Formats: sequence, C-alpha cells, structure tokens
Amino acid sequence: MTPVSELVDRTRQFVRDHVIPVEREVVVGGRVTDDALRLDLQKKAKEAGVFGPLSDPAYGGLGLDTRAQAEVLEAAGASLLGPLAVNAWAPDDGNIHLLAAVANPEQQQRYLAPLASGEVRSAIAMTEPAPGAGSDPRMLATVAEETDTGWVINGRKHFTTGAQGAAFTICVAATTDGPTMFLVDQDNPGLRVGRRMPTLDHTSAPGGHCEVEFVDCEVEESAILGTVGGGLDLAQARLAPSRLVFCMNWLGLAVRAQQLAAEHITGRQSFGVPIADHGMAQGLIADNEIDIAAARSLIRATAATIDEHGATSGQARHEASITKTFVSEAVWRVLDRAVQLHGGLGVCEDYLVARFLVEARAFRIYEGPSEVLRWSIARRVLRGPR
Amino acid sequence: MTPVSELVDRTRQFVRDHVIPVEREVVVGGRVTDDALRLDLQKKAKEAGVFGPLSDPAYGGLGLDTRAQAEVLEAAGASLLGPLAVNAWAPDDGNIHLLAAVANPEQQQRYLAPLASGEVRSAIAMTEPAPGAGSDPRMLATVAEETDTGWVINGRKHFTTGAQGAAFTICVAATTDGPTMFLVDQDNPGLRVGRRMPTLDHTSAPGGHCEVEFVDCEVEESAILGTVGGGLDLAQARLAPSRLVFCMNWLGLAVRAQQLAAEHITGRQSFGVPIADHGMAQGLIADNEIDIAAARSLIRATAATIDEHGATSGQARHEASITKTFVSEAVWRVLDRAVQLHGGLGVCEDYLVARFLVEARAFRIYEGPSEVLRWSIARRVLRGPR
Amino acid sequence: MTPVSELVDRTRQFVRDHVIPVEREVVVGGRVTDDALRLDLQKKAKEAGVFGPLSDPAYGGLGLDTRAQAEVLEAAGASLLGPLAVNAWAPDDGNIHLLAAVANPEQQQRYLAPLASGEVRSAIAMTEPAPGAGSDPRMLATVAEETDTGWVINGRKHFTTGAQGAAFTICVAATTDGPTMFLVDQDNPGLRVGRRMPTLDHTSAPGGHCEVEFVDCEVEESAILGTVGGGLDLAQARLAPSRLVFCMNWLGLAVRAQQLAAEHITGRQSFGVPIADHGMAQGLIADNEIDIAAARSLIRATAATIDEHGATSGQARHEASITKTFVSEAVWRVLDRAVQLHGGLGVCEDYLVARFLVEARAFRIYEGPSEVLRWSIARRVLRGPR
Amino acid sequence: MTPVSELVDRTRQFVRDHVIPVEREVVVGGRVTDDALRLDLQKKAKEAGVFGPLSDPAYGGLGLDTRAQAEVLEAAGASLLGPLAVNAWAPDDGNIHLLAAVANPEQQQRYLAPLASGEVRSAIAMTEPAPGAGSDPRMLATVAEETDTGWVINGRKHFTTGAQGAAFTICVAATTDGPTMFLVDQDNPGLRVGRRMPTLDHTSAPGGHCEVEFVDCEVEESAILGTVGGGLDLAQARLAPSRLVFCMNWLGLAVRAQQLAAEHITGRQSFGVPIADHGMAQGLIADNEIDIAAARSLIRATAATIDEHGATSGQARHEASITKTFVSEAVWRVLDRAVQLHGGLGVCEDYLVARFLVEARAFRIYEGPSEVLRWSIARRVLRGPR
Repeated sequence: MTPVSELVDRTRQFVRDHVIPVEREVVVGGRVTDDALRLDLQKKAKEAGVFGPLSDPAYGGLGLDTRAQAEVLEAAGASLLGPLAVNAWAPDDGNIHLLAAVANPEQQQRYLAPLASGEVRSAIAMTEPAPGAGSDPRMLATVAEETDTGWVINGRKHFTTGAQGAAFTICVAATTDGPTMFLVDQDNPGLRVGRRMPTLDHTSAPGGHCEVEFVDCEVEESAILGTVGGGLDLAQARLAPSRLVFCMNWLGLAVRAQQLAAEHITGRQSFGVPIADHGMAQGLIADNEIDIAAARSLIRATAATIDEHGATSGQARHEASITKTFVSEAVWRVLDRAVQLHGGLGVCEDYLVARFLVEARAFRIYEGPSEVLRWSIARRVLRGPR
Repeated sequence: MTPVSELVDRTRQFVRDHVIPVEREVVVGGRVTDDALRLDLQKKAKEAGVFGPLSDPAYGGLGLDTRAQAEVLEAAGASLLGPLAVNAWAPDDGNIHLLAAVANPEQQQRYLAPLASGEVRSAIAMTEPAPGAGSDPRMLATVAEETDTGWVINGRKHFTTGAQGAAFTICVAATTDGPTMFLVDQDNPGLRVGRRMPTLDHTSAPGGHCEVEFVDCEVEESAILGTVGGGLDLAQARLAPSRLVFCMNWLGLAVRAQQLAAEHITGRQSFGVPIADHGMAQGLIADNEIDIAAARSLIRATAATIDEHGATSGQARHEASITKTFVSEAVWRVLDRAVQLHGGLGVCEDYLVARFLVEARAFRIYEGPSEVLRWSIARRVLRGPR
Repeated sequence: MTPVSELVDRTRQFVRDHVIPVEREVVVGGRVTDDALRLDLQKKAKEAGVFGPLSDPAYGGLGLDTRAQAEVLEAAGASLLGPLAVNAWAPDDGNIHLLAAVANPEQQQRYLAPLASGEVRSAIAMTEPAPGAGSDPRMLATVAEETDTGWVINGRKHFTTGAQGAAFTICVAATTDGPTMFLVDQDNPGLRVGRRMPTLDHTSAPGGHCEVEFVDCEVEESAILGTVGGGLDLAQARLAPSRLVFCMNWLGLAVRAQQLAAEHITGRQSFGVPIADHGMAQGLIADNEIDIAAARSLIRATAATIDEHGATSGQARHEASITKTFVSEAVWRVLDRAVQLHGGLGVCEDYLVARFLVEARAFRIYEGPSEVLRWSIARRVLRGPR
Repeated sequence: MTPVSELVDRTRQFVRDHVIPVEREVVVGGRVTDDALRLDLQKKAKEAGVFGPLSDPAYGGLGLDTRAQAEVLEAAGASLLGPLAVNAWAPDDGNIHLLAAVANPEQQQRYLAPLASGEVRSAIAMTEPAPGAGSDPRMLATVAEETDTGWVINGRKHFTTGAQGAAFTICVAATTDGPTMFLVDQDNPGLRVGRRMPTLDHTSAPGGHCEVEFVDCEVEESAILGTVGGGLDLAQARLAPSRLVFCMNWLGLAVRAQQLAAEHITGRQSFGVPIADHGMAQGLIADNEIDIAAARSLIRATAATIDEHGATSGQARHEASITKTFVSEAVWRVLDRAVQLHGGLGVCEDYLVARFLVEARAFRIYEGPSEVLRWSIARRVLRGPR
C-alpha cells in the first residue's frame, strides 16, 4: 500500500497538471462535462496511480480507509472535476459504498465491478416531486408490486442524479413490507429518463439531476438490493460515507479558492498598498483559514470514528450529520469570501471562484438540508435528558 | 401628481400582469433580455402610467422625490425585470440622475431626453483592468489629452455596464487637471466595445458588463460633462442616488422571494405537517422579515435625508454607504434563506429564487464593495474623536 | 411645546452633566441605585426640563408623541441611569402607558399621578415559577377568587420587576372569566415581597427583580384594572410601547459605547499606529455604525406606525416585535464589539462597557425572548399564504 | 500510566462529586475563591488521582501528552473551579509549561516543584498600562538594568494574573539586549501588588488580575529565566500550550452548559409541549452541538501537532492561533445560547449559565484578542503567495 502522504502529493500533482486545465475549458470555455471528458480524465488518473480512492484494489481501487480518503479527496477536490477524475463523485461514490457493503456477489460483479473501475456510471432515484418523498422518506410514493416473475415499479422521481448516460439506477420504491431498493438497468424500457433539471450545479458532473419516470418497469427478483423492506436502512447506511465524501471534496475546493484569493490580493494594489495589507481583507483570509481548519479536523475526526466504529454506528451517523452541516456551511462562507476578495472580478466567470460559489449552493441542501440535519442532531442530544 | 400609494399599487399590478410572465420566459425559457424585450416592457409601463419614477415629467417621468421612489421601486423590484421596465435600472438610473444634476441644456436635450424617455440606453465606463482603477479611483489609467479641436481619449475599461447597444457612454478619463467625465457617442469610431464579460448577473439587463477600449477616441469640447478635473466629484454625486436605487430595487426582489418561500412552505408537507409548522423554517421566515423591515426603514430614512439635505451632502453620503452595505448583505441573506426554504427545488431554476440569488451576488460588490464601504463608514465615525 | 431637537440637546446635556458622574459612582464605586439616588436624579431632571418624556403634561410630563420619544430616549439612554432619571425605565414606563390607556379616573388619580410625577415607583407581577406562566401566558397559575367584598389573590410570582420599595404592584391573576389585572397596594398584608433575584442586570434600577407571593391577598373591586378577564389584552397593549421604549433606551447606550470605543482606539497605539488605523478595528466600528443606524431607523418607523395606527393595531404590534428582536440583538453586538475594541480593559469594570454588556444580556429575553418573537413574526407572515 | 479514558472518567466523577458543590457555594452563595478553598479542592483531587494533568510525575503530576490533556481537561472544565482543582488554571498552567521547558535545575527545584505540586501559586506580569505593552510586545516599558550584583527592575504592570497571594511572579522587562524574563519572589520589597482589578472573570481563581509595580526591585543574576534578551521567544513558547489549555478547559464548560440547557428545556413546558419540542430551541441545541464538536476536533488536532512537532514549531503556533480564535468564539456562542435556552432564568445567577457567560467574556481577549490572532493567521497564509 502506498503511504498516504505520497498519494496525496501525487493526487495534488495530477489535479494541477491534468484536471485544472480541463476545468478552465469547462468553466470559461463552455466545454461540456460529458462521458468522453470523464473517461479521458479517469484514464489519466489511472496512469497517475490516483484512481479509485473509494474502492477496493480488486476493482482497481486504492483500498484506503476513511482517514486516508479524507486526505486524498481533499487533494482531489482542488478542482471541480477532480473528484470525477478519480471516481469519487456523486452519485457513484455513494453507490460504490452501498454496493460494496450490501450487494450480493452476483450484483457486485454485474454492477459494482464496472462502476468501481470507471467503466460505467450509475444513478440514484430517491427524491420525488410533491407530494412524494423529499426530506421525509415516509412520504415515498413510488411503488413496487410483486409479480409472478419479479417486481413492477411505478412512480415519478426527480433530482435523479447521474441519470443521463448511466448504466443503471438504484431506485427506492415502497412495497407492502416497506421501502426497498432495486437495481434497474438503464435500458429497461420501463425506466424513462426525462429532462435534465436546470440546477445551479451543472458543471461538475455528467449525468445531471434528471426527472425520471418508472412506468410498469419490470425487474427480476435479483434486482433487489439488500432485503425487501430494508431500503431505509440501506439509505441510512449510504448516507454517512456519502456525506463525508462530499465534505472531503468540497473542502478541497475551499482550500483552492483560498489560495486563489490569497494570490489575487497579494498581486493587486489599492489605496497605495497591496490589497493583502488591508486589515479587512486579512480578516476574510483569516476567517477562511479558521473555517478550513475546523472543517478539516471535523472531517478527519469523523473519518476516524467510521474506521473505528463503522459507518452505520450511531456515533458515526451523528458525527457525519454534524460534520456535513458544518462543512457545507463553512465551504459556502469560504467561497463567498473568496469571491468578495476578488472584487468585481469575483462575480465574473473568467475567475473560477464565481462558478465555485454557484456550484456549491446545493451542498447545503442535498444529502440532508441543514435544517433537517439540525433537527436530527438536536433530537439525539435531547434524547439523553429525556 | 398621483398620490404615492396609488402609484405603488399600479406598479405592483403592472409587474404582476406584464413583467413576471416575461421574467419566467427569460429565467426558465431562456429568452434573451434584449432591447426588443426592453422596449416592449417599457411601452406597457408607459401605458400603465408607471414609467419613469426617476425622471422629470418633462421627459415623461413621474417626478417623484426620493421617498416616493423608495416605495415605487420596491414595488417595481418584485421582478428581476421590473426596474428595467420602468426605466430605473443600471446604469441608466445613475446616468439619469447625473445628467439631470450636471449636464448643460444642450447635453440634456441630446442625451438626457432620449435616455429618460426610454428611447435609448447608455453605458458608464469607470472600472479598468489592473493596474488601473478599481475601488481606488486614484489609479485611473485611461487618459484624455487636449487637442486643437477637443480631446482624444485612450485607455481600456472593463465592467462597462450597458455598453452593448447603448447610444452613448459616459467615460471617466484622467486629464492634467484631474479625472474628467466625457460623453462619447457609441458610434464614435474610437470607442470599441469588446466582449460581454461572463458575469453571474446576466439576466436582468440588456447591454451587459463589457470590455471597452478607447483608441484615439476623438471628442469635441462639448463632450465634457461638468468641468475638466471635476470627474471624481461627479462620480461621488452619482453614487448616493445610484446606491439607493439599487437598494430599493433589490429590496423588492427580497420581498418577492420571501412571498415565494412563504407560499412554498405552506403548500408542502414534511414529517406529517406543513413545512411552515417547523420551527426552524419559521425562524428563517422571521429572520427574512426582520432583514426586510430593517432594510426598508434604512432606505426610507436615507431617502428622507437626500430629500432634505441633498444627495451630495456628507450626511446623505454616509447614510447611503451604511444603507448600501446593510441592504446588499440583508438581501443576500433573504434570498439565500428563500432558496433554503425551497429545499432541493431552491437550487433548480424552475424556481426563480435560484436565479435571484445568483443575480444578487454582484450587489455586494458593485458601487462599492462592502469592505471599502465599511472602511469609509469607519473613517467618518473616527474623524469625530480625532 | 418645546421643539424636539432642542429637548434632545437638553437631555443629552443633562445626562452628560448630571447622570454620567453618578453612573460612574454606581458602576465603579459600588454606590447603590436606591430611591434616594433616583429621587435626586429625577429632581435634577425636572430642573433641567427633561423629566417625563412618556407622560402627560397634566402629570408634569413632556407630552411627546412616540416619534419624539424615540429621539429623546435615545439621548437619555446614553447612561445606564439616564432612563431612570427621566422616569422612563421599567417597569414604570410600561405601567405609565398602561394606566394612561386603561385606568379609570379614580385609578389614574391614585396610581398614575404619583407614578408619572416620580413620587413613587411601581411593580409588575406577571412571570411565575414553573409550572406557571413564563413566555406562555396561558399557563397562569396565580388565581383570584371573587368574594363578597372584592377579590382574594393567591399565587407565587418571580422576576417581579421593581417590587422592592414600590408603592403598588400590577398583578396578573386567573379568574373564572380569564386573566385579570389587579392594582395591589404594596402595604397590603397579603403581598409579600421576597428576595431580590441575583440577575445580571442589577445596576440600572432600584426595586430589582423579586420573588413575590400573594397569600390570601384581599383587594376591593376597585382594584381591577380594565375588565375582568381582559388581562391578556391589557398585557398585549402594554407590550408594544414597552418594547419600543426599551429599544430607544438601549440604542442610546449602544451609541454611547460606540463613542467610548472610538475614543479609546484613537487614543491608543499598537504595532506602530493608532489602533483606529487597523482595518479589523475599523470593521468593528463600521459594523457598529450599521447596526446603530438600522436599529434607529426601525425604531423610528415603528414609532410612526404607533402614532398613526395606535399601539394596539396589528401592524404596530408586528413592527414592535420585529424591532425588539432586531434592536435587542443589534445592541448586544454593538456592546460586545465595544468591549472587544477596548482589549483587556474592556472586561474590566473601570471601563463602563464591561458593565453595559452584562446589563444588556437580559434585553434579548425580557418582554419576549427572541425565539418567541420570531415565532410570532413568522406566524403573521405565514398567515397570508394560508 | 493510567489509560486515558479511565482518567477521564475519574476526573468527570471528581468534578461532579467534589467540585460542582463548591462551585454552587461560590457562584450562588458568595463564597470566596481563596487559597483555603483551592488547597482543599486540590487535596481532594490528589486523593482522587486526578491532580496534575499538566505536570510531570516527578512533581506529583500525571505525565500526560497534549492529546491526553485535551480529554482530561475537557472533563475538568465541566466546572468553573475544575481546572483550579486539578492545577491547570491560569497563570499556573502556562508557568508550569514554561518552567518545565526552560528553567534551569535550581529554578525548577525552587519554583517549578512547589508550583507543580500545588504548594504555591504564581503570577505572570507582562501587560502594562498605556503607553506600555498590550497586544504589541515591542511597546514594553518596564525596564531591567544590570547592576554589580544582579538586576534592578522598574515599571508598572496591570492584569498581572494571580498576583495576590502568589509565591513568585514571572516579570517581563526590557534590557539593552531585549525583553527578558525574571523570576521575582513575591516577598521582594521592590514588588508591590496593588489593587485587584474589577474584571468580569472574578469567580474562577484566587489571585485575581492585579495592578503591580516594580520599584527599584533588585533581583540576583539567578533570577533570569532563559537568556537575557530571550524573553519574547519564551513568551511565544508559553503561548501555544497556554492557549490550548484554555481551550480545553472552556470547552468543558461549554459541554456542561449544553447539558444544563438540554435538561432545562426537556423539563419545562410552553405552548402545550416541552420547550425541547420547539424547532427554534432545537436549532440552538444543534448549533451548540456543532460548535462543540468543531472545537473539540480542532483542539485534538492541534494537540497532536504539538505532540508531534513541538509546541514552538511554526505549525503548532499557527494551529494554536486558529484553535484559540475559533474555540473562544464558539464557547461564547454556546454559553450565550445556553443562557437563551433558559429564558428569564438564564440571566439569574441561581442558574449557573449566567455566571459562565460573564466569566467567559475575557477568553476572547486574553492570550491574544481575536483580531490580533486573525492578523497573525492571515499573515502566515499570505506569506505563501508573496
């Protein structure tokens, strides 16, 4: 196994040499983040030995524990496209975790192997248009009914991340025994991928967030992931690692934005001195540094808890909720200050920080909006005294 | 003169009936905010009797004092395109103020009359690429030299708001007697409008923020606005009203976003009750209401100061700095909370709040970044004890 | 009637010359804020023509509308003891409002006249120890039962502001027809004033916040204020003016703290320049100035609403809730920054800002904690869409 | 060596059983925190095997590394008097660190041994009244001049923590070779301890913050700590551990306040449900939990850096600055929210959170005000790009 710090350095160098130039073409030049681009970046990541921080060596991955992932993904996150390049971007990151944890051997061979190796992409279909399931999973309206030969799924989803061009979709549907996860091949005629939704985060991944409809979508018994009725537990099991991977990636982008801002203000003058000599600019830089340090230490502490107690332990889930809430808000503050430190240029996409900020807005909402997470954090705290 | 409250009602109705449908076409449907669209909206505004809150009845305007403008523009600001529709959007709003205050009769007839009536648009060319003038006007690098027949201007500008399709540009250039403002016709062969910069705020106005070059740009003596060397004073004189108009407009958008959020959460359920019954959602709604009320009262107090003491008085300028800083940050918070209250839908441009937030980011930077304004506010406070 | 601005100047001068020296004796020298001190200050206030901003000329007051009160009380609030000196401090301010609005002529003569003239002090007994009434008035546990000759009150109260040394207490007690207010003479043998509670705000008023017990406390029919069962409405009617008066007073203290901080940092050096030249110190000064300006404009706008629509109008109550929430939090921020700007000296009571901060903490809680006010603000906003 | 987790449990139990009852006598009952009280608590701490987390077993200490100190002192910090009880409170904690690191064997025997064992207390005399040294050590005005037999010190200090009743004072004075530290016995006739300053934090320690004067104060050569002219380096070396110990202790108090608040709101009703069911109360609880988790992970990460790279390494100092800034502000927020969650009772010293808040205010100022720390953090960040 490669020592982690060396892998971090390699990842950092890979991002600088191979990803950041492409990022500029995408953000400034309007190049589309499609699968050709993804495959090209991932090929280079493999050549650089930095591909697969989330997956097992059996699938060409790096076999890292969560603590090591934290360091490597912070390095990969320095570019909006870095996590995609190393195959640690949503929804594939969470799906890799999930399939590795609960898929049976046949499912692992059929779905996990090509996903973990970057051969294909995947999607996750949970969220539904009102009055279906949003933050509250009990409102699930998509239904799977048992048939003689398997199951038939009906219902509408939206924000189905990664749907365009995916090889398969993990769909959560209600059964008489409770919510259940199904592995649905994308070429299933009952799975209809609709329009890509016009979300603010459109740069960082192929596949988009899509409207998806399941219309008499027939799947075999073997499509069931885990157990019938066990879907909510699986969704929970997927959450802590998925939330933490987002935190690692976005922390990397915050660190990059801080560097861009620091360089910008040391190179520019106003009122007779470099902007970097103005106390209020220094205050923004220091606040960024504090937010970054706190985010980093929370992520690493939670990673250690996952490694020691497992991702489904109550402690890991509590810490992941806290960390996701803090980091998503801290990253937003850092990116916002980086924009402000660029002055007028900060709202011009010639400078990447403008795009970074817009892309990051969804992070405070997906995988649990801050308010829902705070609610769940408080309930756990208050359970003690009750 | 129409009583103000009636005019406010009419403006509100006009925005609802004629502007908001077009706004949806622009934000969701991708319709371009060009001059055809502008002229159509302004024609309807004239028919509705709500055109011209910033200009004199002599030019078809409504002849309002600043206090009345505050109420009317808050109503107009309910849509991103409302201020444009009533001819109170940058940079024309500030240019109308400036020309009304300092242009000579010939200049008023030639430039102010068509601008105030909506016949043409204008641009303002102040900011320069580094190492030229940004927040610090003393760094002005564009130069005007006197010739036998007038002046010749050379230099590069960027963020020249409104440049594409404008009829004329007000250019600030250095002379041996100090910064000076020049009225340059857009068809002057020495004025070269370059690319439209890819700024985050691209929806709300035709004309964009452009790169502009002045190459041996010859103008006559009559092109001078105010006095030679008096350009900085004019820029200052333009600032207080311009900052306040922005505040009025954006406050209107914050009020709209709050309404959209309140409607959204009363109509949706989660965890067994309407989202509107969740305490943390109520907290966001209340924080919005407080920010809106504080912003509104600051704007109106500053408007009263302008009406009583003049826009160039020290008191008006101090209050306008305070108000611009507070309102730009309060509006940002309100829009951000409105996004959050929409959950996942809030970052999808099907819902307008996503676009509102992105468009608003520049407001904390243009016409004085918050940090530069805080510096100037503090210096005035500290002048007392010194 | 004296023009307001002249009265403001006189109040400012009175505070500077007569109150601030006494304040120093109290805060630094340990002098007790007793009734001798109060009577002495109020005598001087009468001599200076600044006594009674809240009361009618019939009682020796200044007969000001709410807008004028806002200006005068901001001036009086420059010292912790200024509002007491002019007879506008809790609970007498609210009791004066209440008695003026609803007491019958006999009650006005017996209770309002000596209170408004400063002859006596009063108390208000609403809050009860758990499980009695705190923020939720429906939990009222003190009971009044009708007898042949009047009423008998039984129950325990705490945080009874002003109880030590008061001439009478307004007590809220439950009757079969609902909560009712009673005027109880302090020498009633059934009214037992217990210990003064060790609250953080102990400097600014005689009378304290006390534990009080009503034990078979007999009062006559004439003790009823307003109507039987109308106590909650009266409490509500008392609230908006009382909240606003607190805002006016505390705003004055925030303004004073800002002046003290500005003077401090202009007179001290660190790292080779006056502290006032450090950008981060300027940022704190500017944030204070913004908070003060926003607080002032909110207070004045709400005062105008009270003058135009009445203190019990829905609009006035909504605005007073917003204003109290914002101002109590803004004042806290201003005082906290003023402490910080004093460095180590800021936490030493040789410098008054330390005491100001500690005294102010309760303002975010009494007369409605911020959270309860936010809840009520949100409900009103959300009532629209519902 | 005792395993850390067991020691943490023992410390927690010791604080609960022996310290918290005394804390109540001090905060509510007015008992004075004098040396009799300290010696009694420390005797019990020794009996419980929890005395001396900062010192060497040679002096009766526990011999912990910084990581273990973080866990133990968080437990000790659960009471305002806990750190004092285990001998980890200012200024003795920092003086123990300093003497252990740089004192010569004679000095260690004479000063460190009795200090580390709790036999005596000590003081530190750095800060001076204006125009002497505050945040800027270059403004040092106290002077030491070499004589035939040693040195003579003259100058005035204030905020000399621990001076009343100390056995010795570490004094920083200017020499021709630069700032130098001297060990001065408290019975030296040239050392005059003046009044105890009326600071907000008066509960948590004997000795106070005092005014001190050195008048022809003669000391021998052996009084020099470290090297002549090396005083600033020593002060810096003292800082990182001292800052971190404060963070550990105060984090413990924040955790306690959160528990008190959680218990309070689960046991009280308002508006028909336990306060703990109100969303805004839950929001405060969650924000506390997030602040506590971030503070804890920052402290432990910095502790690990100190253990690995040494307390005087640049990395340790940078991290300690970040951690002190974040933790001092996070603790303040937590305590403030805990007060708010107690409602009116929260500002009454019957409930300890009121006293906790007041005591904590100085933590954002001593050992480096947040603004000075932010400046130093920013400079380090900006050194990279320059």
